Amino acid sequence: MASPAPASQEDRAAATRQRILEVAEGLFRAIGYQKTAVADIARELGMSPANVYRFFPSKSAINEAITARLLEGVTGDLETIAAGPGAAADRLRAMLRMLHARHLALFFDQKRMHDMVSAAMSEHWGVIATFIARIESALARVLEDGARRGEFAPVDPAEGARMLKQATLCWTHPVLIADAMDKRQVEEAQMAGELDGMLDLLVRGLRPDS
Amino acid sequence: MASPAPASQEDRAAATRQRILEVAEGLFRAIGYQKTAVADIARELGMSPANVYRFFPSKSAINEAITARLLEGVTGDLETIAAGPGAAADRLRAMLRMLHARHLALFFDQKRMHDMVSAAMSEHWGVIATFIARIESALARVLEDGARRGEFAPVDPAEGARMLKQATLCWTHPVLIADAMDKRQVEEAQMAGELDGMLDLLVRGLRPDS
Repeated sequence: MASPAPASQEDRAAATRQRILEVAEGLFRAIGYQKTAVADIARELGMSPANVYRFFPSKSAINEAITARLLEGVTGDLETIAAGPGAAADRLRAMLRMLHARHLALFFDQKRMHDMVSAAMSEHWGVIATFIARIESALARVLEDGARRGEFAPVDPAEGARMLKQATLCWTHPVLIADAMDKRQVEEAQMAGELDGMLDLLVRGLRPDS
Repeated sequence: MASPAPASQEDRAAATRQRILEVAEGLFRAIGYQKTAVADIARELGMSPANVYRFFPSKSAINEAITARLLEGVTGDLETIAAGPGAAADRLRAMLRMLHARHLALFFDQKRMHDMVSAAMSEHWGVIATFIARIESALARVLEDGARRGEFAPVDPAEGARMLKQATLCWTHPVLIADAMDKRQVEEAQMAGELDGMLDLLVRGLRPDS
């Protein structure tokens, strides 16, 4: 309790950052990322643009923080499934199905979110790279667990995780989901069914020799 | 032998179309697709642009024909492997490795070809769709053959072929190859090694229950 003042100053700054992100996300969703200016965000918060810039150097930096938070929500849920009970194969299936469903929602149901994430993909690849690394490490943990239980053949967990990610990229990569929907005119239910077929094949491939 | 004249007129037209495609492909490779005009192709052939337009309505139509011919070369080789001797698993591996190597060459070693194929991908999706359909049907044939020999579990050949294609898309889709090279800085040898790992996993998944 020696110096509570600096801590609470930090808390206040964190709360302000938080409010800026919430208001900005609301505007990005309502108006669109491209059409929202930092001045709009400041006005909505009743502060000056200069004050917003004290916390974030640019609209792009605000977007980076929002995207990171959004993707952390996905990885958090993924890690919860990874750490949960049940057969390793079932957890892998649940994780990859969830990723597909979230990406479908992110990129297609919420058109305006798509602009935000697209901007993040070109401007802040680091955020996306972190997201991918966390997905792979959650998958690797389940692969390792499955091998320990004798459910899977021994496999290099990192390599195996990358393969699972690559084999299911058609269901998670924005460009490939768009290809499936626009060019092959695949319906959502069919896409989910095809993913299940792929997961069956992969899980069979992971089993130990009998 | 009743009327040889119309046949030879057709032959002459086919030969002219062929010459136009060869000269155009040469210019697309040397100068680039975007920078080549139909007038350049006509000049090189010693004909008028109007004469070229008698055979192809646009530069885009010339590109469509060149791309179709290029991709037919790839599918021809793929079908030769599919129909060849050896274990079905080995043929699948050889086919998918060849597709990867050809696409790598097509999209990255030959920058100017890449422009051509990109233009075809946006303007003539039909040519690409035919290419994909022929790849899938060659894979399906090998899957069927493997199941008949007891090498693979019984599988719907068309579904299985689509899965093989999707699982290996990281190694054949231009956008994903570019992602791997630009964003993950993956070397060609590493990419080929990762493909082999994926093929091992897939072939294991295809085996019958023992």
